[in-house]
Amino acid sequence: MLHDLFNPSVQHSLDLVGIFVFAISGALLAVRKNFDVFGMAVLAEVTALGGGLLRDLIIGAVPPAAFTDLGYFLMPLVATVLVFFLHPEVERTQTAVNVFDAAGLGLFCVTGTTKAYDYGLGLTSSAALGLATAVGGGVLRDVLANEVPSLLRWDRDLYAVPAIVGATMVVLFIRFDVLNAYTSSLAVLAAFLLRLLAMRFHWRAPRAWNRRSSAREEPEKATAQ
Amino acid sequence: MLHDLFNPSVQHSLDLVGIFVFAISGALLAVRKNFDVFGMAVLAEVTALGGGLLRDLIIGAVPPAAFTDLGYFLMPLVATVLVFFLHPEVERTQTAVNVFDAAGLGLFCVTGTTKAYDYGLGLTSSAALGLATAVGGGVLRDVLANEVPSLLRWDRDLYAVPAIVGATMVVLFIRFDVLNAYTSSLAVLAAFLLRLLAMRFHWRAPRAWNRRSSAREEPEKATAQ
Amino acid sequence: MLHDLFNPSVQHSLDLVGIFVFAISGALLAVRKNFDVFGMAVLAEVTALGGGLLRDLIIGAVPPAAFTDLGYFLMPLVATVLVFFLHPEVERTQTAVNVFDAAGLGLFCVTGTTKAYDYGLGLTSSAALGLATAVGGGVLRDVLANEVPSLLRWDRDLYAVPAIVGATMVVLFIRFDVLNAYTSSLAVLAAFLLRLLAMRFHWRAPRAWNRRSSAREEPEKATAQ
Repeated sequence: MLHDLFNPSVQHSLDLVGIFVFAISGALLAVRKNFDVFGMAVLAEVTALGGGLLRDLIIGAVPPAAFTDLGYFLMPLVATVLVFFLHPEVERTQTAVNVFDAAGLGLFCVTGTTKAYDYGLGLTSSAALGLATAVGGGVLRDVLANEVPSLLRWDRDLYAVPAIVGATMVVLFIRFDVLNAYTSSLAVLAAFLLRLLAMRFHWRAPRAWNRRSSAREEPEKATAQ
Repeated sequence: MLHDLFNPSVQHSLDLVGIFVFAISGALLAVRKNFDVFGMAVLAEVTALGGGLLRDLIIGAVPPAAFTDLGYFLMPLVATVLVFFLHPEVERTQTAVNVFDAAGLGLFCVTGTTKAYDYGLGLTSSAALGLATAVGGGVLRDVLANEVPSLLRWDRDLYAVPAIVGATMVVLFIRFDVLNAYTSSLAVLAAFLLRLLAMRFHWRAPRAWNRRSSAREEPEKATAQ
Repeated sequence: MLHDLFNPSVQHSLDLVGIFVFAISGALLAVRKNFDVFGMAVLAEVTALGGGLLRDLIIGAVPPAAFTDLGYFLMPLVATVLVFFLHPEVERTQTAVNVFDAAGLGLFCVTGTTKAYDYGLGLTSSAALGLATAVGGGVLRDVLANEVPSLLRWDRDLYAVPAIVGATMVVLFIRFDVLNAYTSSLAVLAAFLLRLLAMRFHWRAPRAWNRRSSAREEPEKATAQ
């Protein structure tokens, strides 16, 4: 059982932190979209738990962890209350939120990959599901908010690449039989730092060559995170 | 087996009524969005069966009820035909549709919660899935129609709260071991009446405190139900 | 086991062709929406594998074929690379892409129906899942790209009907016990030709009778396929 790479209570605490910061990003988008408090709670839950839910449905781990661990369910509600009362203060700490979000991204791409492999998927599929775990909640958040998913837009700093790097490191560690708490932490750290660097230096991914001039060049109004 | 709270044929008839009215709301939105008859049928099916489908995938009840009961599948097609030929008449009975929709909401939050508990989920998770059963179809409807989900918008009368109240009553009845056909009906009735009152008096949920002035204040054009 | 209607390697090659052309349509939409290369890859994967993934989750075939066959996963990446470097050339071959897409539609509605029946679903449900297999990926593509699904719009040539005809033929063949490689090919061919004819003669489905004048008559700008 690879899944318990870390001390279970350490793992659980890290999961809760990741869920909390993802939920914050969902609740903040809900405020920007002018949703009411229930819309905030729904968006917080979906952002925080959507990626893991998708992974668990695909690997057949039902009921998904999101519905068996009460802490996972309650954390987004705490985030909702916080954003509800302290919205401007939370906005002002956007940099801090981004740093935590990067940590969540790093953590979830690693634990997602590991859990998928535990359930018998191949290495490539496990890495793909690790990526889906890390970014799936954010995509669902944007779809529900009727926005073009931030993940897909060219005018956003790299988000998928750090998660791909983290997930790939995990499957390489598995392949060479050196996956443990230390190498896992290394993969989390690599994805985390890569995302921080991408935000700091505004790294972006290229678009298709020779796009036709009809393509809209101007970045759309940035309302999503 | 809690699931058969009511006489099975009564339960089945109630389910079909709920599915029918949800399907009507999907077909009506399709007409407003100018979709063709197949778009109407797809939106009717998704609205009517989407919430239960989501619940069944999460609790591992596959194939989902939506694909094992022919009546569940055919009912939305009947609703599509009706709206196709009698669209203005159905629109004119919008109040009646709203009342039936409220009944569907009440019924589905109760049966959804009960079924989730039957499949071994905890009380909080069961209530969350009851809510998802009741409102999930409407959210999928709005996402497919490329609208901001009606559920999330502040300028709509309370929709989630009645379902939350109904689902919470069910888990409290389970907790205190008094769930039966009578108490279940009470929960259905409470959610139903609460939704009617919310529509009658335009009850709305609050938005986050101290939103920035940049937030769009004007209600968007109301095309979704 | 009906599923191996064709020689397994023939079946697999056909599947890969269908996946490839669906992926092309996803990558092309990503270019039109100005997404970066990762957005292109995500949209290609979702378009190509989304319909089958949905079907496999519903019939309980987990992990879904999309995650157990490496070829299925890699094909959309090949399509992404091709569109990335040769976008204008691929656009210029849009007619060829449309013909292949019609072939994919015909193939997937037949194999989807057959697989659903293999997993114990009834005839009507199997046909519905065959349709979902064939059109689901395109709907997910449009939802992720924040477009009104091409499938639902009245101003597009018939797309669902050919798949419905193909799936219905399969369940009739099953019903009368004459399903084999030849009759299956017939169903694929019927759906394929019907889609070609629909494109050639711009066949469209009717909209609801007596729509109110407030309905928007003008076709929206056609950015989706």
